[in-house]
Amino acid sequence: MATAVEALAMQRAVVLAARGLGSTSPNPVVGCVILDPDGEVAGEGWHQRAGGPHAEVHALRAAAGRAHGGTAVVTLEPCNHTGRTGPCAQALIAAGVARVVYAVADPTPTATGGAATLRAAGIDVEGGLLADAAARGNEAWLTATPRQRPFVTWKYAATLDGRSAAADGTSRWITAPQARAEVHRLRAESDAVLVGSGTLRADDPQLAVRGVDGDITQPLRVVVDTEATISPDARVLDSAAPTVVAVAQDADTDHLKAEVLRLPRAADGRGLDPHALLSALYQRDVRSVLLEGGPTLAGAFLAAGVVDKVIGYLAPALLGAGPAALADAGIPTIERALRLDVADLQPIGPDIRITAYPSPDHLVRSHPSPDHHPSSRALRAHPDAEAAEEN
Amino acid sequence: MATAVEALAMQRAVVLAARGLGSTSPNPVVGCVILDPDGEVAGEGWHQRAGGPHAEVHALRAAAGRAHGGTAVVTLEPCNHTGRTGPCAQALIAAGVARVVYAVADPTPTATGGAATLRAAGIDVEGGLLADAAARGNEAWLTATPRQRPFVTWKYAATLDGRSAAADGTSRWITAPQARAEVHRLRAESDAVLVGSGTLRADDPQLAVRGVDGDITQPLRVVVDTEATISPDARVLDSAAPTVVAVAQDADTDHLKAEVLRLPRAADGRGLDPHALLSALYQRDVRSVLLEGGPTLAGAFLAAGVVDKVIGYLAPALLGAGPAALADAGIPTIERALRLDVADLQPIGPDIRITAYPSPDHLVRSHPSPDHHPSSRALRAHPDAEAAEEN
Repeated sequence: MATAVEALAMQRAVVLAARGLGSTSPNPVVGCVILDPDGEVAGEGWHQRAGGPHAEVHALRAAAGRAHGGTAVVTLEPCNHTGRTGPCAQALIAAGVARVVYAVADPTPTATGGAATLRAAGIDVEGGLLADAAARGNEAWLTATPRQRPFVTWKYAATLDGRSAAADGTSRWITAPQARAEVHRLRAESDAVLVGSGTLRADDPQLAVRGVDGDITQPLRVVVDTEATISPDARVLDSAAPTVVAVAQDADTDHLKAEVLRLPRAADGRGLDPHALLSALYQRDVRSVLLEGGPTLAGAFLAAGVVDKVIGYLAPALLGAGPAALADAGIPTIERALRLDVADLQPIGPDIRITAYPSPDHLVRSHPSPDHHPSSRALRAHPDAEAAEEN
Repeated sequence: MATAVEALAMQRAVVLAARGLGSTSPNPVVGCVILDPDGEVAGEGWHQRAGGPHAEVHALRAAAGRAHGGTAVVTLEPCNHTGRTGPCAQALIAAGVARVVYAVADPTPTATGGAATLRAAGIDVEGGLLADAAARGNEAWLTATPRQRPFVTWKYAATLDGRSAAADGTSRWITAPQARAEVHRLRAESDAVLVGSGTLRADDPQLAVRGVDGDITQPLRVVVDTEATISPDARVLDSAAPTVVAVAQDADTDHLKAEVLRLPRAADGRGLDPHALLSALYQRDVRSVLLEGGPTLAGAFLAAGVVDKVIGYLAPALLGAGPAALADAGIPTIERALRLDVADLQPIGPDIRITAYPSPDHLVRSHPSPDHHPSSRALRAHPDAEAAEEN
């Protein structure tokens, strides 16, 4: 049974782990706190970037001799394999720690077994402390690893009536500076940011991270540009961050100096196959993708079932006309709506941030049996069926 | 200076006042708590319906002799005029109260002067205690009275991407039972509910209040049906609540047995003039209107500047296609967006309720001078200008 001091240390370790977001892939983020035999914090560390020391090694260095007989509190089960750095289980044994408390078991076949190794060395080992919080902090890696594709977060900004721009196309600014600053933080915490060619043509975004404090790693900028229509002068091709242009296998790219990723077209002929794109990005060690739009690309990803998280910035404004934040996602009827569970609801300046995840029972709900859903019959083709059905 | 006991009594009086919502028009809602000379609650009352006793009279009756030398705590300045009931100022004087604490001054020319009358009788009078809370509780009447038109609340339900139905028109259910139950409460607290003929044709709603506890008054059901296309068998014409059908002055209504309200057409030729409709409803003692849709009617009301409050129920779901919750509101460009201030953000079951008011500086912001808004130039006609502008 973990102590209160260990629980506090784990909370701290989760915070430390988050500092690595966007910089550690293909590795997870990990935080570690070393407590000395008296329960005092002797050292802290976090995994800062792939190829660099693991969290435990940083923390043990900071703790120096005080780790002997102490406790290592770590967000992920210490690794057991020798990769670019030595196995953390051995480092903990060598440092003479008496106890190891971790939050989440390591699910990767090559790294797993750390807890067993530690126990075999006579160390008291306990897993599962604050596992939910630690898992949420590592959600991208924990999701990406078993699925062999990056964790995808769709971020959008819209008015309360779901518009991402006015009738004339203007959209500066829908959301306030606070929300816009958060988007740069989201980018910094992602391995890659994704936009479609429509957005590129219309807006020429740079997509780099700006205005974020700390030692950030610029995300890979990925342009989904099936027909390779991108201008060689596009800002997204500047030197602020690496860029790859995903095109169809038969696209003519002679005019492009950018790195090109050739992919199969989607089965429905609209753009590229999202699965193939994500698989290719995974091969490049991308574990988290921030999907920034536009509505067509977002619709294609949602239709393909590869959106893992949704972050919506809703501006308290109404437009009544203009393009929707989300285009065709292959949902013909209300029973097939993509249902989400709201995880967090926050005012961000004058705006509202909604963080949500696709509902686990979505697949069940979206393919109902008529026998079990007598009320789910298709009704009348009118926008206000909702109001009426309430009556 | 009001005491803590008086402040608690005023909080209670505000709660009592709310019990009258939907039943007191053209009068305000008022709550009253009588404290005896020791500061104990001696009686409570609220204005229950127009023509019935005022809140002070109910509370004085409950307090009986204990009001003598005590304090009357009331959400609105006691009235000074003899309407259908006697003036409350005289009733308070007759009961021998020593002190009167009220929240909001009475703005109506005929009723005002109660405080002065009380002071002239030697009673200690203090105004302004919890004035904001009391004014919010009476917002419909306090807004309607000076404007000579009802307070309009637009209620809508939509997905996170702003759809009120799926591509095939189905919308059962976008929101969960908790949100739908709230809508019946909103109706019960309104003097009238308003829908357009499109909603009527498509959904045949009844629009009556169901499932709400307590002694509720059914709201007037108002159908905006410019060309008088309503079916004589429409559910909204049943006996569950009164109904009026608003039609154009030249509409043929021979087939209708319902009460008809003839109104001028809107200046732009689309439907009826919202100002004329609201003015006619005000003449019928309607002080609060719940605008339930559809998107076209809501757009017309927003364009006319007669929406005073917005309550949105957002379901955590995505559709990517289907009709928008709001149609044309005469907003061509982002600078003219109707900006709102969020007053409340609440989870309602799995859904989200946003309560907002048009921003007081909306008129300033919506008609910017180009000289003062160099960044407000019309940009490119693309839905993702937002994302790009952040870059």
